[in-house]
Amino acid sequence: MFKIPRGTRDFNPEEMQKRRYIEKVMRSTFQSYGYKEVQTPTFETLELFTAKSGETIIDELYSFTDKGGRGLALRPELTAPVIRFYVEKLQMEPKPLKLFYFGNCYRYDRPQKGRYREFKQAGCEIIGPNTPEAYAELIAMAYKILENTGLKNLELKIGNLNILSSIFEKYKLTKDQQKYLTPLIDKSQFEDVFSALKDFGIKNDEASIIIEVLQTTDINKIEKLIDTPSIKKEINELKKLTDLINNSFKIRNFQINMSIVRGLDYYKGIVFEIEAPALGAEKQLCGGGAYELIALFGGQETPTAGFAIGFDRTILALEMEKYQFPKLALDIYVIPVNEDMIQKSLEITQKLRNKKLTVDIDIFKRGMSKSLKYASSLNAKKVIIVGPKELKNDSVTIRDMDSGKQEIVKNKDIFRSIS
Amino acid sequence: MFKIPRGTRDFNPEEMQKRRYIEKVMRSTFQSYGYKEVQTPTFETLELFTAKSGETIIDELYSFTDKGGRGLALRPELTAPVIRFYVEKLQMEPKPLKLFYFGNCYRYDRPQKGRYREFKQAGCEIIGPNTPEAYAELIAMAYKILENTGLKNLELKIGNLNILSSIFEKYKLTKDQQKYLTPLIDKSQFEDVFSALKDFGIKNDEASIIIEVLQTTDINKIEKLIDTPSIKKEINELKKLTDLINNSFKIRNFQINMSIVRGLDYYKGIVFEIEAPALGAEKQLCGGGAYELIALFGGQETPTAGFAIGFDRTILALEMEKYQFPKLALDIYVIPVNEDMIQKSLEITQKLRNKKLTVDIDIFKRGMSKSLKYASSLNAKKVIIVGPKELKNDSVTIRDMDSGKQEIVKNKDIFRSIS
Repeated sequence: MFKIPRGTRDFNPEEMQKRRYIEKVMRSTFQSYGYKEVQTPTFETLELFTAKSGETIIDELYSFTDKGGRGLALRPELTAPVIRFYVEKLQMEPKPLKLFYFGNCYRYDRPQKGRYREFKQAGCEIIGPNTPEAYAELIAMAYKILENTGLKNLELKIGNLNILSSIFEKYKLTKDQQKYLTPLIDKSQFEDVFSALKDFGIKNDEASIIIEVLQTTDINKIEKLIDTPSIKKEINELKKLTDLINNSFKIRNFQINMSIVRGLDYYKGIVFEIEAPALGAEKQLCGGGAYELIALFGGQETPTAGFAIGFDRTILALEMEKYQFPKLALDIYVIPVNEDMIQKSLEITQKLRNKKLTVDIDIFKRGMSKSLKYASSLNAKKVIIVGPKELKNDSVTIRDMDSGKQEIVKNKDIFRSIS
Repeated sequence: MFKIPRGTRDFNPEEMQKRRYIEKVMRSTFQSYGYKEVQTPTFETLELFTAKSGETIIDELYSFTDKGGRGLALRPELTAPVIRFYVEKLQMEPKPLKLFYFGNCYRYDRPQKGRYREFKQAGCEIIGPNTPEAYAELIAMAYKILENTGLKNLELKIGNLNILSSIFEKYKLTKDQQKYLTPLIDKSQFEDVFSALKDFGIKNDEASIIIEVLQTTDINKIEKLIDTPSIKKEINELKKLTDLINNSFKIRNFQINMSIVRGLDYYKGIVFEIEAPALGAEKQLCGGGAYELIALFGGQETPTAGFAIGFDRTILALEMEKYQFPKLALDIYVIPVNEDMIQKSLEITQKLRNKKLTVDIDIFKRGMSKSLKYASSLNAKKVIIVGPKELKNDSVTIRDMDSGKQEIVKNKDIFRSIS
């Protein structure tokens, strides 16, 4: 017997029903914000990903050499491919260019709950504007997409990497020191950050101020604590952005959080994350912000921002919140009571299928009780029984599978009686 | 600048609009026939594909070794993965089990028009029944799926490999001789078939009969030409199947064709192909039939049939037939005439988005004429202009982008006026 590769999944009809439903909700939300769908190949040249993320990413990639000797890799994420697509073919499109996409991504990770080697992401990029209005809309859309799936409990955190960088600059921390600090900040290990800052020669009260900035959710407090001109500008923009999110997009439950780090290499300025507390340790559903990648890929530098949503985790979070997904069901199951009824049964079936109903027909000729049991396993709403006695009167029997009630209906009234 | 890998494609918004539309039509047709969607991973163990298709398939595969040293391959087709899924997890499901799927497949082929290294397939399997009714429904569904996409010109050919095998048996052709003949039959090179038959020691008039059977579209003629008991049974079932397709499924333009070969290794009995003449040389859109694969994969042998549709070729065929795909458009573009109008504009935008309209808003503040030009590039149907004078009267200006007509509308009437 052959086995599925480790860390990958098969999706049965019930799971696919959930996935297609969530995909549809997400797609229509993207579209309602004027975003347009694109798609890139499943694999790219290896250099595309090392250019963006450094050589160390190779350890996490499914990479292979094609028969022309070229290094390829299954994509670990979708931003690099989409920006490669933009630079190669879409630079002349009118701006803002708002693109969204769904795609499977691949990471050679140790499989665990909520982490798979093949996983699905939804995401988007907005290319052109860098105004607080544009960023507010982007963040609001991410939140609305998740809210529209049916998730009740979401936490939105908004940060600004330029503020963090300004602090690093103000206290003259070297690149190496910054590199040491960022993972600790990312994991909210503030005691370790504090002692590292002191090791780097920063005075006790100054280190305390930095920790306070990283921990507070009060933007005015940050403004008072770090009063430099470069931070002033960032603070004002962040205030404007949060005002818009609050007053124009009507999103109330968000927090300012300066400890969001993400990839300091290519993210610049606004960053945000959305979490689903229902998920426990692996609770991040969405991450994004403003970033610079186009010039690195050989294009004309243009402001870009975007986000990625973990599709699988979104479903997992909905399941944890006991969300009632639409059920897999069949509208009608048709049972011919004997061989002679098959042609008429097929005719009825085809007519109903043409009216966009989901209809199945007994092709096993296995007797009424087995057929009814099978119809029930398909979660059929109605069963149409085609028998010789009724057929003489141009009629069939319609059985409601919930109530068990049966009625005799003229052939010409079947559709009306069912819908 | 980074380049897309050879033989793969990026899809821009216009192309994705077409692809999602066709996918939706295909999905809803599958569902109307009681089929349920499943999905398997993008890669499988290499042995899965060599078990089905032999070692020679390795040359056409994108294969690689994972860090655990296991041989994996990007799937070249979807039947083997779905049957692997069935054997591993779905054997206990009630029968008939009707499964459909969409998936990208990968072949290391020389790229050419209509042939890509990454391509998309739609397909299905029915597991359980082997009656003429089941096969007729399967073939009819394949035809209807393609017809429902909007294709006008389709050619359906139905064959039966058991009849071909019976002929091979009757004339005592060895396996090697059969292997030599089948590719020639597949390509309708009947002169070469004829001379090969004679080389294999078959008499002139008998070889002529075989050629006639392979070329005729008249099932009664085949019955007369080859009158053996094993063929008799197959002919009767084929007659019943074609009667159903004709009379119950109302499909008229199909032909009997005994030269359909497909994979003689695992296909058994009924086979069929659907072609789009608009495509020229590479015109096959769909191929399928009854096959045996479950036992080979370690499961309990059960009748199976299915088909695959080339998704990319279907789109190509529609384009060749000049099919008018639904156009990419935006319902509404909102333009605030100055900075102070932005908050109100965002409010209007959000209200309309909540009503499932696709709405975009000017976040560039770049002036009326540039904004209207951008709205036009997005194919916007209406533009809402939010200005201070109108806003004093709780009104906005709505411009119809087709006619250029403008009217002033009360805020509370915007949705009514637009829809």
